Amino acid sequence: MSVTAARGFTASGVSAGIKDSGAPDLALVVNRGPSYAAAAVFTSNRVQAAPVRWSRRVIGDGALAAVVLNSGGANACTGPAGEDDARAMAERTARALRVEAEQVAVCSTGLIGVPLPMDRVTAGIDAAAAELSEDGGEAAAIAIKTTDSVHKTAVASGSGPDSGPRSGSGPEPDRGPGPGWTVGGMAKGAGMLAPGLATMLVVLTTDADVSAPTLDSALRQAVRTTFDRVDSDGCMSTNDTVLLLASGASGVRPDPAEFAEAVHDVCLDLALRLVADAEGASKEIEVRVVGAASEQDAVTVGRSIARNNLLKCALHGEDPNWGRVLSAIGTTSAVFDPDRLDVSINGVRVCRDGAAGEPRDKVDLSGRAVTVAVDLRSGDASATIWTNDLTAAYVHENSAYSS
Amino acid sequence: MSVTAARGFTASGVSAGIKDSGAPDLALVVNRGPSYAAAAVFTSNRVQAAPVRWSRRVIGDGALAAVVLNSGGANACTGPAGEDDARAMAERTARALRVEAEQVAVCSTGLIGVPLPMDRVTAGIDAAAAELSEDGGEAAAIAIKTTDSVHKTAVASGSGPDSGPRSGSGPEPDRGPGPGWTVGGMAKGAGMLAPGLATMLVVLTTDADVSAPTLDSALRQAVRTTFDRVDSDGCMSTNDTVLLLASGASGVRPDPAEFAEAVHDVCLDLALRLVADAEGASKEIEVRVVGAASEQDAVTVGRSIARNNLLKCALHGEDPNWGRVLSAIGTTSAVFDPDRLDVSINGVRVCRDGAAGEPRDKVDLSGRAVTVAVDLRSGDASATIWTNDLTAAYVHENSAYSS
Repeated sequence: MSVTAARGFTASGVSAGIKDSGAPDLALVVNRGPSYAAAAVFTSNRVQAAPVRWSRRVIGDGALAAVVLNSGGANACTGPAGEDDARAMAERTARALRVEAEQVAVCSTGLIGVPLPMDRVTAGIDAAAAELSEDGGEAAAIAIKTTDSVHKTAVASGSGPDSGPRSGSGPEPDRGPGPGWTVGGMAKGAGMLAPGLATMLVVLTTDADVSAPTLDSALRQAVRTTFDRVDSDGCMSTNDTVLLLASGASGVRPDPAEFAEAVHDVCLDLALRLVADAEGASKEIEVRVVGAASEQDAVTVGRSIARNNLLKCALHGEDPNWGRVLSAIGTTSAVFDPDRLDVSINGVRVCRDGAAGEPRDKVDLSGRAVTVAVDLRSGDASATIWTNDLTAAYVHENSAYSS
Repeated sequence: MSVTAARGFTASGVSAGIKDSGAPDLALVVNRGPSYAAAAVFTSNRVQAAPVRWSRRVIGDGALAAVVLNSGGANACTGPAGEDDARAMAERTARALRVEAEQVAVCSTGLIGVPLPMDRVTAGIDAAAAELSEDGGEAAAIAIKTTDSVHKTAVASGSGPDSGPRSGSGPEPDRGPGPGWTVGGMAKGAGMLAPGLATMLVVLTTDADVSAPTLDSALRQAVRTTFDRVDSDGCMSTNDTVLLLASGASGVRPDPAEFAEAVHDVCLDLALRLVADAEGASKEIEVRVVGAASEQDAVTVGRSIARNNLLKCALHGEDPNWGRVLSAIGTTSAVFDPDRLDVSINGVRVCRDGAAGEPRDKVDLSGRAVTVAVDLRSGDASATIWTNDLTAAYVHENSAYSS
C-alpha cells in the first residue's frame, strides 16, 4: 500500500509516454488532510535539478498538499526552461487538485540534461489526477521506477502514545489500524547507490497528527542513519529527494520518540531495499565500524571502505582481501593505530593487529550477504554503511544507459 | 636504459622465485658515486608497508647507495615479522655491495598481508648483485612488473647549466651525452591508478651533481603535478614509493630550474605510461579543469570527475554523458556557479551554462584518447588529472587477483 497505507492519502501512477517503453512514468501522491504538515531532505549536490530547486522552495512553509513525480527524465541541468517546466508541473497538478502550486512538490528522475516532453507530462498529470485512489500506492511506486527491478514500499504503524511502532512490509501491510497511526512509503533508486538514472526518490506519508517541526526532526534523524549511509558507488545525484507528508487523519498525536522510531524503521527498510536492488550487484555488503573515536570517524572509515573499487571487485570475486580494507582505512584521517586494526569478514577475523589473523580460506563468501567488520580500537563510537559489490554487470548497465 | 641511462649507476633484475610464475621478481639499482645524494616521496596512506617504513627512515640523511626492489609480495600489513624482513633485505643487499644497510632503500610490490619467502629473496639478492651491470636498467624495470603489460622507462638529459633538457624514451635512449647530464627512470604500476598489486614504484637516477635538498625540491615539485595527478580508481596504495638518486658522475652541476624540469619531464612521461597501461583500461582520459578560483579547486574538481564510476562507465560505452560530469563537480566545495559551468568532451562543448550545449552526437569517442575539459568560470587556475575508463576487464582483473 506504500504511500496510501496511511489514512488521508490518495495516489496514482500512469503511463504518460515520457518513457519510450510505454512503462508507467508519472505518479501523484495527494494529502487529503485534515492536516498538511510536511518535511523534506534533498541532495547535498550543489548541482541541483529544477524540481529540487522548486520543491526546496515550496517546502519552506512546512506544508504540502501533493507531490507529482515522473520517471523517464531528471529535468536536471536543463537551464531556465527546466525551471519553467518544474513550475508548470506543479501548476498543472495544483489546477487538477484545486490547490495552490506552492503546495505541490515536484520530483523527477531519469537522464540529466534532456528537457521533459511537457505536452505528455501535463496530459499525464491530468490522467493521474483522474485515477487517484486510496489503493493507488502500489501504482505510484511502480511509476517512479527507472532501472529498479522491483518497486519498493514499506510500512510501520503505532497504536498510540504508549506503545512502540510495529514495522512490516509486503503486498498487504496494515492500513492505519483502528485508533493507531501508520507511516508508509515508497522509494526508487539508485540514490547514493548507483544513480545511473540520477535519482533516489522517496515519499513517506503518515496519518499521525504531527507538526512540521516534529516531522522535520524525525525525518532528518532517520535519513542521517539510513539513506545517508547507503553508498553503492559514491556518486551523489542531482535529484535525490525524501519527502514526509502528514495528514493527521488518524487523529492520534504520537509520542515524538515513538514516531521518530517508526519513520526510521520505514527509512531503513526502504534503504536496504535500494541496496538489494542496486545496479548489477551480486553481493549486499554491510560495513560495520566499531571502536571509533567518534561517530564521524566511524562513518568516514565505513564510507572509504564502501567506496573502494578494489575491495568491491575482490568481494565480487569472493576473495576476502582484507589488505584492501586496511588500505582504504589508511586513506582517512580517523583516529587509529595501523598496528592495532582488526578486520573480520563474515565473522572470521582475517586481520588482527594490522596483520594476518585467521586463515582467509575460512571465510565463506558464497552467499549474497557480506559483513565487513572493522574495529579501530580507538573509542566507543560505531556506524554502519551499506554498499554492494562492483561487477561487470554494473559496468555494462552504466556504459549502455543513455545510448 | 632506464635507471642506467645516467652514469654512475648499475642495475640488474633476476628471477628469485618469489612469483610462482618464475618471472623476474627482484631488482637492484646501485649508485657507484662519487656522490650519493637521494630524495624520496612515499604514499600518504597511513597504513604503510614495512619497506616504506624502512625506506622513510633511511632516507632521512639524504643519501642512498642502493635500492633493492621485489615484485610478487608487498610486505604490507605483515606485522613485526614484516619489519624484520624489510630490514633483512637491506642488510643482505648491504653485505653484497659492501655498504651500510642504512644506505639501502627497500621497495616491495604484490599482495598485501602475505609474508615474503625470505630464503628466496636473500638468494635472489645475492644473484642480482652478481649480475649488476651498466646495461642492467631494462632488466631491473622488467623485474618490478606485476600486472603491468609492459615495463616503463623514460629519460631526459641536459647538456649544461645554459641549455634546456631534452627528453625522450625508447629502447635506446641517450646515455649521459658527453659533458651533459641525464635523468633516467623506471616505473611499475598501478600507483594511485589501479593498485591491484598494491604499489606504484618509481626509481629515478641522475648523474648530475645535485645536493639532497635540491633533489628533494625537484622531486616533490615534479610528483605533485604528475604521479599525484594520476588517479585511475581513487585507491591509494600502502607501498607507493618514488626515489631519486644522484651519482654526480657527470661532473656537471646543472641549473636547479633546468634540472627540475628534466625530473618533471621524466616523471610525466612515466606517469602517462602508467595511465596507458592501467588495468583493464580501454580509454585514456585527460580531465582538464580551467577557470578555477585556485589550483586546489581545480585539482579537487578534476579528481572528483576522474573518480566518478558512472562517468567512467559512460566513457567506456562511448557515451558523452556530461550530466555525470556536472554531478561530480556538484559534490565538491570548489568555487563555481552551477548555472555557469561549461563542459567540452573531445572538443565539443556539450554543456554550456550548466545546460545542454552542442548536440552530444557530435562527440567522437571512438578513439582511445578522451579529453574532458571543464571551465568553472571562477578564476584563472587550472589543473589536469589523468585517469582511465571503468571496464568489465578491470572488474575481472581485480576480482580474480589474489585467488
